[in-house]
Amino acid sequence: MPKPTVDLNADLGEGFGVWRLGDDDAMLDIVTSANVACGFHAGDPAELARVCQAAAQRSVRVGAQVSYRDLAGFGRRYIDMAPEDLTADVIYQIGALQALATAAGTTVTYVKPHGALYNTIVTDRAQADAVAAAVHAVDPRLPVLGLAGSAFFAAAEELGLRTVPEAFADRAYRPDGQLVSRREPGAVLHDVDDIANRVASMVGDGRVRAVDGSTIPITVKSVCVHGDSPGAVRIATAVRDRLAADGVTLEAFT
Amino acid sequence: MPKPTVDLNADLGEGFGVWRLGDDDAMLDIVTSANVACGFHAGDPAELARVCQAAAQRSVRVGAQVSYRDLAGFGRRYIDMAPEDLTADVIYQIGALQALATAAGTTVTYVKPHGALYNTIVTDRAQADAVAAAVHAVDPRLPVLGLAGSAFFAAAEELGLRTVPEAFADRAYRPDGQLVSRREPGAVLHDVDDIANRVASMVGDGRVRAVDGSTIPITVKSVCVHGDSPGAVRIATAVRDRLAADGVTLEAFT
Amino acid sequence: MPKPTVDLNADLGEGFGVWRLGDDDAMLDIVTSANVACGFHAGDPAELARVCQAAAQRSVRVGAQVSYRDLAGFGRRYIDMAPEDLTADVIYQIGALQALATAAGTTVTYVKPHGALYNTIVTDRAQADAVAAAVHAVDPRLPVLGLAGSAFFAAAEELGLRTVPEAFADRAYRPDGQLVSRREPGAVLHDVDDIANRVASMVGDGRVRAVDGSTIPITVKSVCVHGDSPGAVRIATAVRDRLAADGVTLEAFT
Amino acid sequence: MPKPTVDLNADLGEGFGVWRLGDDDAMLDIVTSANVACGFHAGDPAELARVCQAAAQRSVRVGAQVSYRDLAGFGRRYIDMAPEDLTADVIYQIGALQALATAAGTTVTYVKPHGALYNTIVTDRAQADAVAAAVHAVDPRLPVLGLAGSAFFAAAEELGLRTVPEAFADRAYRPDGQLVSRREPGAVLHDVDDIANRVASMVGDGRVRAVDGSTIPITVKSVCVHGDSPGAVRIATAVRDRLAADGVTLEAFT
Repeated sequence: MPKPTVDLNADLGEGFGVWRLGDDDAMLDIVTSANVACGFHAGDPAELARVCQAAAQRSVRVGAQVSYRDLAGFGRRYIDMAPEDLTADVIYQIGALQALATAAGTTVTYVKPHGALYNTIVTDRAQADAVAAAVHAVDPRLPVLGLAGSAFFAAAEELGLRTVPEAFADRAYRPDGQLVSRREPGAVLHDVDDIANRVASMVGDGRVRAVDGSTIPITVKSVCVHGDSPGAVRIATAVRDRLAADGVTLEAFT
Repeated sequence: MPKPTVDLNADLGEGFGVWRLGDDDAMLDIVTSANVACGFHAGDPAELARVCQAAAQRSVRVGAQVSYRDLAGFGRRYIDMAPEDLTADVIYQIGALQALATAAGTTVTYVKPHGALYNTIVTDRAQADAVAAAVHAVDPRLPVLGLAGSAFFAAAEELGLRTVPEAFADRAYRPDGQLVSRREPGAVLHDVDDIANRVASMVGDGRVRAVDGSTIPITVKSVCVHGDSPGAVRIATAVRDRLAADGVTLEAFT
Repeated sequence: MPKPTVDLNADLGEGFGVWRLGDDDAMLDIVTSANVACGFHAGDPAELARVCQAAAQRSVRVGAQVSYRDLAGFGRRYIDMAPEDLTADVIYQIGALQALATAAGTTVTYVKPHGALYNTIVTDRAQADAVAAAVHAVDPRLPVLGLAGSAFFAAAEELGLRTVPEAFADRAYRPDGQLVSRREPGAVLHDVDDIANRVASMVGDGRVRAVDGSTIPITVKSVCVHGDSPGAVRIATAVRDRLAADGVTLEAFT
Repeated sequence: MPKPTVDLNADLGEGFGVWRLGDDDAMLDIVTSANVACGFHAGDPAELARVCQAAAQRSVRVGAQVSYRDLAGFGRRYIDMAPEDLTADVIYQIGALQALATAAGTTVTYVKPHGALYNTIVTDRAQADAVAAAVHAVDPRLPVLGLAGSAFFAAAEELGLRTVPEAFADRAYRPDGQLVSRREPGAVLHDVDDIANRVASMVGDGRVRAVDGSTIPITVKSVCVHGDSPGAVRIATAVRDRLAADGVTLEAFT
């Protein structure tokens, strides 16, 4: 039986001007795919250029992490946008990062929505359609990274886009396979060994223990590790090492 | 002797959100090249998408009108930016418009700096180099539209970029071929016939009368008409009609 | 029986940088209260300074028209903000306008939420509390202008703020006294005589005909006329003239 | 002979949204005056509200740290603004912070320009006049904190504003009393003992050693310590301890 392969992704380029967030260089030594901000929730162009160059040097794939226009809220606040405005905003962001990636000798190889937009299009089909239409309009060969079973994946698949399901290393899951809301206790896991074990189970067995104790199936082509929390680098390293120890090959999905 | 050919360009897509500026649709029926804003001095993505679509329908060429990041000042205020930040800002803007143009079925075929950035890189070689480097990094085949004899053209030519010199239909010229500053009286012409006659002379004879009464040579591959001033459509129409009457072919330079 | 008195208010100062919206000077000759933008949905400081000066010259009262931070959407898009962030944003905006009003020789005498924030706090008590708390924190003597029966008024009254109910000259009402959503047909009235007649009835009789033909009671201390729509000045003038003809005194509520 | 008294000031509230800069709480335990950002170069309203509250709890004075509108550049880039626009921008910022300070139970007691604006108005009289006019328009009793001998102080004094000269704990001085540009080597001092000794000499003897080795006179009513550099808290503590050891009383100038 062939050993499984999985991608490891993290959000990067999330500073702005003088402000930094997380340790991009350390994370780029760990992950295989970098979800690079596009300037709407974070990421001034000079910062994005640096991240693209650093990713290119390490052959880490660059994805466009598109967001609502909301620097003050870091893209974490739902905005009731008209779908046509959202489509244009997403096209704009992908294109901006594409040019910076090109200048850095690499390319944008996928799209992953950020923050409140990510959460909204799990269920909001109108906004999901708007984001999928944007990706399709820029390049129908661009895969999207997101949540299996989401409205976003349904919208993307209708347009013929490739969908890549991800799992979150440090987030609790509900029995229905959705994430426990950050507003509820226990939504985010902190124990390094725990997290590494869960990822091993998700990737190796296609199963994860839900918050109610039940075991649920999960399809994982990519594992998302956070780059901005305290201890992020340590957690990401533990995930990577555990997968390697289990014989899983870390490899970008594009 | 073959009749000359010239391009007619105007700044478009310069609204933002609910705010409009000028009559984009009317101007698109007149010009051959549209300098479309890129979101830094004007132009929200939905507005830019609409202008790209309208340009595509009329086969008007789309250029990226890149600017300092300054919505409050409409890009008309010099900003003392570090060259590497300026390069990244310009790459970002070109890419954003490229994606919107692609989605509209057209492409960005040239770059023209806007406002204070345009004026600054007539003489500021460091910022001129930064803008030229950005264009070159995105696509070395993209021509730049600007002022003959400028530091920007010198910088662009050193990188092997094609430079397209433009003249301004309604601006007074100094004897040295530079524009009279807007802060001086008589800098902007308003008489429609006057403007049409000047353009006819610039394009037909390669000469224009400077503000001191002397006649100076001028090289013109494109004529810039304004889209945002009162009477803009009337002036642009007069220029177009006069050139047609003189047997000049209006044709995009790309 | 004493003739009634009513205030006439309009949204002003809603340009930004080079962009204008509506004819502020003409509207200031008509209304008794100016809801002046505070920079979050519109209004750069220089624009706001000019409007405050023009209002001061005409003894028109200045109110702070506070909004979500959303220049690209003109404050017309709901944002799912944390209440404590909303409170801080509203305090910031009121204070900014207060200083500009002071510099213009006038003062901010009331607060009116704008756009999506106005609509949201008709029913969303958490955001309503956040806005009311902001007004109270700046100055508990500041009245708020809004919709009778709204969650905002309930929140404001709990804090001891004075609430001033307004009616909309050109908007259709539901039988329950709420506004017909702009997304439904017939939500906005356009006929000048119609509008003048409705206002006369609302102010004179305390009644308005709802969209289903029924007549409903309405309490009006201020009538809102729009300053940004085509024909705005003509409609506002008709409303003012009709009220004068009916013997109603136009007078600011503060 | 009475022991001297001096104020200790630092820039605070310079995060934005999720982004933090420096350790505000630690610095508030050290300084007597907090230059709080006003949202144009840093400082979202919720952040500013927190800093005002923390300052109020410790009886640290709050000053308005006004800036060019430039989040992407942290206010460190000169902008060629029209003086009337600059005046309005500064009034807006002071007012915004005043309201947040009021809500926190304190008040804005002085104004200090930030970054490139600070540097520009050392010599640019037109912008200096614009800033001084703004302070005067808001409240002519507000003192300004800045550089002795600057165009800003001349402008402020002409308007009758109180000027408070400051010295920089960790910056090298030229023989003419101006700061060595950050672009030159040796502009910023890093050795804690060195810095403490210099401050002791500046405050105790009114003298500092310039970069060429000469000793120059300096008038100091307030010492600026940085809050955002590595080791900032350690340096500020050393300065405070050294002054206390020398019998200097640390006391706000307002």
